[in-house]
Parts: sequence; C-alpha cells; structure tokens
Amino acid sequence: MRKFEETSTIAPPRSAIGTVLAEVRRSPLFTLIVFVPVVFLFEQVFPEAHTWLFVLSIAAIVPLAALLSRATESVAAKTGDAVGGLLNATLGNLTELVISLAALQAGQYLLVKASIAGAIVTNTLFMLGGAFLIGGLKHHLQEFNRVNARFQASLLFLATIAILVPSLISEVDRTPAVAFSQKLSLGLAILLIAVYGLGMLFSLRTHRELFASAGHADVDEAPWSLPVGTVVLTVVTLLVAMVSEIFVGSVQVAAQHLGMTPAFVGFIVVALVGGAAEMTSAFSAARANRLDLSVGIALGSAAQIALFVAPVLVLVSYFIGPEPMSLQFWPGAVAMMLIATMAASLLSNGGHAAWYAGVMALAVYAIFALTLFLLPPGTGQ
Amino acid sequence: MRKFEETSTIAPPRSAIGTVLAEVRRSPLFTLIVFVPVVFLFEQVFPEAHTWLFVLSIAAIVPLAALLSRATESVAAKTGDAVGGLLNATLGNLTELVISLAALQAGQYLLVKASIAGAIVTNTLFMLGGAFLIGGLKHHLQEFNRVNARFQASLLFLATIAILVPSLISEVDRTPAVAFSQKLSLGLAILLIAVYGLGMLFSLRTHRELFASAGHADVDEAPWSLPVGTVVLTVVTLLVAMVSEIFVGSVQVAAQHLGMTPAFVGFIVVALVGGAAEMTSAFSAARANRLDLSVGIALGSAAQIALFVAPVLVLVSYFIGPEPMSLQFWPGAVAMMLIATMAASLLSNGGHAAWYAGVMALAVYAIFALTLFLLPPGTGQ
Amino acid sequence: MRKFEETSTIAPPRSAIGTVLAEVRRSPLFTLIVFVPVVFLFEQVFPEAHTWLFVLSIAAIVPLAALLSRATESVAAKTGDAVGGLLNATLGNLTELVISLAALQAGQYLLVKASIAGAIVTNTLFMLGGAFLIGGLKHHLQEFNRVNARFQASLLFLATIAILVPSLISEVDRTPAVAFSQKLSLGLAILLIAVYGLGMLFSLRTHRELFASAGHADVDEAPWSLPVGTVVLTVVTLLVAMVSEIFVGSVQVAAQHLGMTPAFVGFIVVALVGGAAEMTSAFSAARANRLDLSVGIALGSAAQIALFVAPVLVLVSYFIGPEPMSLQFWPGAVAMMLIATMAASLLSNGGHAAWYAGVMALAVYAIFALTLFLLPPGTGQ
Repeated sequence: MRKFEETSTIAPPRSAIGTVLAEVRRSPLFTLIVFVPVVFLFEQVFPEAHTWLFVLSIAAIVPLAALLSRATESVAAKTGDAVGGLLNATLGNLTELVISLAALQAGQYLLVKASIAGAIVTNTLFMLGGAFLIGGLKHHLQEFNRVNARFQASLLFLATIAILVPSLISEVDRTPAVAFSQKLSLGLAILLIAVYGLGMLFSLRTHRELFASAGHADVDEAPWSLPVGTVVLTVVTLLVAMVSEIFVGSVQVAAQHLGMTPAFVGFIVVALVGGAAEMTSAFSAARANRLDLSVGIALGSAAQIALFVAPVLVLVSYFIGPEPMSLQFWPGAVAMMLIATMAASLLSNGGHAAWYAGVMALAVYAIFALTLFLLPPGTGQ
Repeated sequence: MRKFEETSTIAPPRSAIGTVLAEVRRSPLFTLIVFVPVVFLFEQVFPEAHTWLFVLSIAAIVPLAALLSRATESVAAKTGDAVGGLLNATLGNLTELVISLAALQAGQYLLVKASIAGAIVTNTLFMLGGAFLIGGLKHHLQEFNRVNARFQASLLFLATIAILVPSLISEVDRTPAVAFSQKLSLGLAILLIAVYGLGMLFSLRTHRELFASAGHADVDEAPWSLPVGTVVLTVVTLLVAMVSEIFVGSVQVAAQHLGMTPAFVGFIVVALVGGAAEMTSAFSAARANRLDLSVGIALGSAAQIALFVAPVLVLVSYFIGPEPMSLQFWPGAVAMMLIATMAASLLSNGGHAAWYAGVMALAVYAIFALTLFLLPPGTGQ
Repeated sequence: MRKFEETSTIAPPRSAIGTVLAEVRRSPLFTLIVFVPVVFLFEQVFPEAHTWLFVLSIAAIVPLAALLSRATESVAAKTGDAVGGLLNATLGNLTELVISLAALQAGQYLLVKASIAGAIVTNTLFMLGGAFLIGGLKHHLQEFNRVNARFQASLLFLATIAILVPSLISEVDRTPAVAFSQKLSLGLAILLIAVYGLGMLFSLRTHRELFASAGHADVDEAPWSLPVGTVVLTVVTLLVAMVSEIFVGSVQVAAQHLGMTPAFVGFIVVALVGGAAEMTSAFSAARANRLDLSVGIALGSAAQIALFVAPVLVLVSYFIGPEPMSLQFWPGAVAMMLIATMAASLLSNGGHAAWYAGVMALAVYAIFALTLFLLPPGTGQ
C-alpha cells in the first residue's frame, strides 16, 4: 500500500493506535478493518460456519495487508536507505508469506503451491493488465522506460523458469521420482535464495539507479515514526497470522460449499487478497501516468515470489510441515506461469501501453480463472 | 485482395457482371474463375471423382476469395469509416469462415480445427516469412514501425494463448473431461467475441492512428460502387459456400488418394487457399517496401482467426453441427501455434527485416508441412 | 579461440611444431597440451582405468580445441574473405563435431544427442551469462548492438525450433512411431543444411556488414602462415579424433564411477570441453567491453550447432553408425533448449547488460546441471 489518499496532509506523530485510526478515517479501504475483531468473535461463536469464516477472514486480511505494506514502508523510510531497501524488498510479499506459512503448517501443500503460482500469474497478468487498462482509460498512450522494464521482465522470466525446472523435468518424464524432486527442490531453494541475495546487492547497491523510481513512490505521504511503524508491523503481522489460520482452517469446506475448486481458491482468491495492497499502489500509479512504477511493482513483486517466497517455503517445510514440500507444480499451473511471464515480457517490451493491451491481459487472466473454476474436482493436485 | 494490378485505371460504374469481368481481364489470377462453373458441372457429371473435385474446388476458391476481398473493401470504402472499418475487419477472413462452416455442418471437426490452427500458423510463418523474403530480395534492409508491430504481436500472442487454454489444460492433465472442455470452450468463445468487439472499438475509434496505414492500402485502386460491391459480396459468398461444400465432401477421399493426411489438408491446403488473397496483398506490399502493411495484414489476420473466427465456429456448432465443438486442439497443433506466434514476436520485434529472416520462417513452415505430411494416419485427431 | 594473450607481439614465420610451442609458452591454457601424450601412453598401459582415461582425455581435448580454433582462424585469414569466412563458419564447432562423430561411431546416440542439446544450452546460458557477469564486474553497464543481437537471437530461436519439431510432435503424441521420426529427421537434416548454406550466403556475401565485427576479433594477433595453419589444422583434428575415441570409450564406466548420469556427461561435460576455446574468446571480449563480439560468438555458435552440426550427424549416421539416428530428443532436453533460446532472446533483447543478468543466466544453467546430476539413472534416454 503506497498511496491510498489523494490529499497530502502531514500526519503528526501519535500513538500507534491513533495513527492507525487516522489512516482508517482517511481511506475507505481501511474501514474493512472492522472485520478483524468480527472474524475472531465469529470464530469463537460459530467455529463450524466455514463459509462465513472464509468470507470474513478475506475481508479482514485485505485492510491488514494494506496496513502491513504501509508499516513496512514507514520503517524502511526511517531506517536509512540500505536497511530500508532490504526491509522493503523482503517484506513486500509478507502477507502472501504469512498466509502460505499457515497453509504449510496445516499440511495444505496444494494451497501453498497454488498460491505461489497464483501470485506470479496475478502480479503479471492482473496487476500489469489492470494498470494498463486503468492508466489507458485516462491517458491515450502511456510510455514507460523500456530498458528497465525489459531488464526486470527478463529477470522474472529466469526466476520463474528456475522454480519450474523440477516440474518441467518430472512432467515430461512422468517419473514418480518423489525423492529426486525433493532433493532437486532443496538444492534449488538454496540456490535461489543466494541469487535473491545477490539481487538485493544489485538493486540496492551496485545498480540502485535502475530501480530508483520504484522506491520513492510516496513522497507526498508522511511516514510513520519508527516506534509506531515497528509496533504496527509486529502487531499486524501477528493479526494476519491469526486470521490466516482461520482462513486456512475454513477454506476447504467453504470452497466446496461455494462450488470453488481448491486450485481456484489458491490461485485466484489468495493471490488477489494477498496482493490487494500492491495492486492499489500499481493502479493509482498508472492513473497518475507513472507507469514505470506500476510495471516495477508488478514485475518486481512477481520475481520476489519466485526468488524468495517460494524457496523460503520449501526450506521452512523441513521444520514446520508434516513432510518436506517440493517445488513440483501441477502441470496446468506450470503452463499458466510460463504464459504469464512471457506475456509480461511482450507487454513490457515495447515501452508503450494502451487500454486494449490491458484488456487482453485481463482476458487471459479471466480465462485462467474460468478454467480453474470449471476444473473437475481431483485435478490441479 | 487489395492490389492485384499495377496500373491505376479508374473503373467506370457498370453492372456487377461487367465489373467482375473487367477485373478478370486485368489480373491473371482472376482467370482461375473459369473453374467455378467447371467444378459445378463436374460435380453433376462425376460426383464420385473426389480427387478431381478436390483439385477443381481449390482452383475455384482462390479467385473467389480474391473477389470477396475486393468486394469487401469496396463496400467498406463506400459505407464510411466506422461501418467500413467494421466490415473490413469482420469479413477479412470470410473465405476461411465459409469453408470452415461447410466443414462444421458436415461434422468434420478435425478439418475445422486444423484449418483454424493452420490459418494462424500460415498467416504468421508463411505470410510474414514470404513478405520478408520477397521484400528482402528487392531491398537490402527493410525497416518497419516496430512499436506497432510489437503491439500487434503481443495482441496476437495473447489471442492465441486464449484459444489454447483448453488444450493446454487438458493436455497436461490428460483428463478425458469432455464436458469440462466443452463448457470452458463456450465460456471462452463468448469472452473472446467480447474482447474482439473491444478490439474494434480500439482500432477503429480510440486508437485508429495506430492502424491507419493498413486500412488504406489501395488508394490507387478505384472501389466498386456500393450496389456492385454488395451484389458481388453476396453472390460470391454464396458461390464460395457452394464450392466449399463440394470441397468438404471430396476432401477425405481425395486426401487419401493423394497420400495426404487430413491434418495436412486442413493445416496447409485450406489455410493457403483461404488466405491466398491476403497473401497477394502482403507480398506486393513487401515488394513495394511497405513492410508495415505486410506485417499488419499478417499479424492482424492471424489475430482475427483467434479472436473472431474460432469463437464464432464454436458458437455456431451449437446450432448447425451434430454436436458442440470444443476448442480442444491436437497437441502437435498447439505446439505449432505457440511456436508460430513466438516466432512472429521475435521477427517483428526488431523492426528490421532481411531476406534470410524470411528464409528461416519459411523453413520452419516447411518443416511443419513436412511433419504433417509424414504423420502416421490416426494421429493429429 | 580468438584471443588468448594480451600482448600483441608479431609471431615470425616458423615451423608448425615451433609455432605451436611458442603458442604454448605464451598462454597457460596451452600447457595442458602435455596431457595429449599422457593420455595415449596411459591408454596403452592401463586400458581399463576408465575414470583416469576420462579425466585425462578431457584435459587433453581442451588445449587441442584451442589450437584447432587458432589454426582455423589462421587458415581463414590467409585464404581470403569468402573461403576464409566459410572455413571459420564451418569449422567453428569442429571439436564438438569430432567428439560427436566418435560417439556416433560407437553407437552412443544418447551421448551424441545430449552433446548437441548441451552445446546449445551451454553456448546460450553459460557463455552468454558468463560474458555478462565477467563484463559486468568490470564495467557498470555494457551496451551492445541490439539490432544485430535480436536478429541473431531470432535466427537461433528458429533454428532450435527446427531441430525440435520431431521431438515436439512425437512427445505430444506419444506415438512410438520410430519410422516416422526417422523419415522426418532425414528430411529435416537436408532442409537445415540448405538453410545453413543460405545463411552463409547471407552472412558472408549479401549482408556481411551485419556480422562484420565478429569476424575480425583478432586484429592484434598475427595469424600463422598458411602451411603452418593447414598442418596444425590437420594434425590437431586427427589428435582430437583419437583422444575423442578414448574419451567415448571410457565415458560410460567413468560416469558410473564418478556418480554422474550419462545425460550430465553429454550435456554439461562434453559441451563445456568442446566449447572451451570459444568461451575463452567470448569472456575476454566481454572483459574488453566488446560485448557485441561475445553475443555474436555465443549466439552464432549455438545456431551453428542446430543448423550444421546436428543435421550433419544425422546424415553421417546413415553411413557410420549401427543404425540411422533421429533428431528425437529426450523431453527434458527439449524443455532446456527451448528455455535457453528464449532466455537468450530476452537477454539480448534490450541491448544492455549488467552483472546480475549474468548471474541469473548462470543460475538457470546451474539448475539444469543440478537436475541432470540428480536425475535417476534410466531417465534422459
């Protein structure tokens, strides 16, 4: 969440609760925060009303994700460039990470993998497509720095390929070699985290000028003070974790009631909920004709899922899950991820955007969603 | 058919038959029109001579397609920009559509699908490759507007992906879920037609300047009068439909006699026949060093197959076919379509063309044709 | 091998042996040439010490490859532009060709195919990635001619697609149609060699200015005299053939001892050994901020494998192998080749390079190597 309100009033230092309340007053999205206590209460009273718990927990996570994003940026802004950049980069997908960790602990590996795949597809097709459409409705033709966009798109392509290698190899060979897939995923996870570390060195130190604009999106929004930011960051992360547990506990029964496949929930619902805050930023940047920023958020966030969130989940699965998780994706998800990153390359390639390019990307996303919705139960696993 | 003759004599208003005869005199391709009565006569006398009927009907369709294209443009030129552009865009692949409808009615879904896939591959690899080669033999290096070309290539990629989703999902999952594929294809068809409608709004209204050159290719060719154009359009469409019925009725036996697989006939023969008129335009534009126009015709026509012809055929199959048709393609066709659109992206990416790029694209097309020709009977279904 | 030493002393004409010895003194890599007699002696004394023979033959091939490359260029420089360019282009991958011919004669088709696939992947991901990393560590941002790079990347993509068609079709259809694959591979091989011939016409005659820089890399290195060059070329080719025979004879047992899969040996070891000389050139060009040259060597060499080495091996298999070889690759190799050429397109697309792009490409290469290393025995065949 980088920019919710249009006015640029400077928020005076205040207590954490007061600051959060002020934020809520200024932005309509934050009013959803009322669902946080509601979902906890509801879970005490009707622990078996899974469909309601599912809907309420989604409603509660959206404003928490926005607060988390705001708090991360405030802390980052106050801790200086190096540490701040590191924080911003690492915690950018904190909501997705916390939801996935809850699913991992519950042993719902299908949901975890669907949400990784869904986050990559949603960040590219939906976030990029939405930004192109929203920006294009207001501006005839939008230009953006195509050198940076291409560079980020090629990094995203390579990062996506990397996490897909175990799936591609096992798929094409149809070997039920679980042990092979496990070992490969572990080696891959360690390698990817090293590559991610080098990526931070690259974007925060040696070549920071290439990524400069994305880091300073909110000049007109006063950051919270360091104590406020830290407290909000800690408390809200805990809240997200608690709500995620309710969400994960209710999702299977609820999905069945609502006629959704588990693949659809993970791929579309979790990805949209977890990325809501970033989407708001990307869309408002597009409206402000700052498409560079939108493209940077969309591609950067997708790459971070592949290079950081996915390998962290593999490594953590050795400690908290019932068994180690591999990076073996359902073949349909592999196809969708490959298509999404290739589409992102093509769309960001020209350095020009118009509303119809956004429509096309959103149409492909809609087709994916329709496919996952119609998928016969039992596939996508 | 946009430009067959080199002289720019202004045709005076005349009867429809007279106009068509004048056209025939001016262009050698039109002399093939003599095969139209021949094929009808032949069919009465030798209804079982399938191989001859197959060859004669192909020879008859080529000049009819050229007339159809000429008539569409004449009507479009006389009905004003908005309606005209709409007509031009919608009827651009009318020949392919009419042949496919005849095949659909005969329940030959394999032929329908092969001709959809073949039209996309032929328009990209063969038409683009041929234009690059023909243009490159005359001009050392040809430049074209790469912003437009990239934009159109990315639209084509997304459109192709869209119609491939049912195949990709079912392929990778190997589920025999016919019902799922049917439902998904129907939803997809409705969505694609909506996207196509928005695309016309985009190219004819909000961003017409991006597509301007492609629409005004024939300034030096006098359009026919509105009545002549309308009559020719109607009569020739009926003739194409009648010849297509003969073609579709003879194709299976003839293909067997000539040693061609059904996949080869649909993919290569129908696609080349149906697109002959457009190819002539694209090639003569390349020779005239107007490669922008060639690229626009090739990519635009391929995108129209995916966004308009394919979904219309799915929808119509609910009314005229023996059973609904899905957009489930044979896996080899999926691979070829994906490769062709990626090749189109790469070739149009740089904004430069030389003859060897055309040779490479034609070589890949030749390899596809060879593959389909050698394919053991029973595959490709 | 285009540029091993940094000093530009002019070598006076001398005998072949004296010239080679002078070269050895000037470059540390050439000291490995001592392994050539060692491997022959060792093979006489311990013909069953397969692991040692494997290691020693690798150590012997590396300096021979470098000499071969140097001799080819010297002969090319002395025989005039047309013949010289032809020689340079044809013999550029002579080491790979000779090793593969030895494997072909021994009937080790798996090794032949793995080394073709591996050479394409290694030339793109490893050579290009290494050049970007090495160049990027010294220069902040490197620019290269993106028009040429894109053109070469699109040729490489089409060439790779061409040799993959038999695999793609058979893979997706899962037909055990060996005869079909054989016939298709033969037709394909003839077509590809014709395309390769046209490519030489293009790069050496009609459009030589596009490829100019790559051909004149070594202005500061005096070529050997024609007799010296020819003798070295002949003798070293024979030596490579003899060492290759030892290598091929020992590889299976040695790989088992060292815990490597045959796929890993062919894909990674043979490809790195065979391409060592070209890599040295590409890397030193990157360090000298001549990234155009690096990109040209990497993409051009990969394209030559697909358009020349692979079809020659297919044709030769009709004469020297136990049975004709098809271009049917193991599905995992297909995926890796497609990914590598797409990555090469993306990386060369922007015309800018920085060290992190190199890290990403090398990471994908490392993941491929890890996958092949962990592959359960029996796959990859």
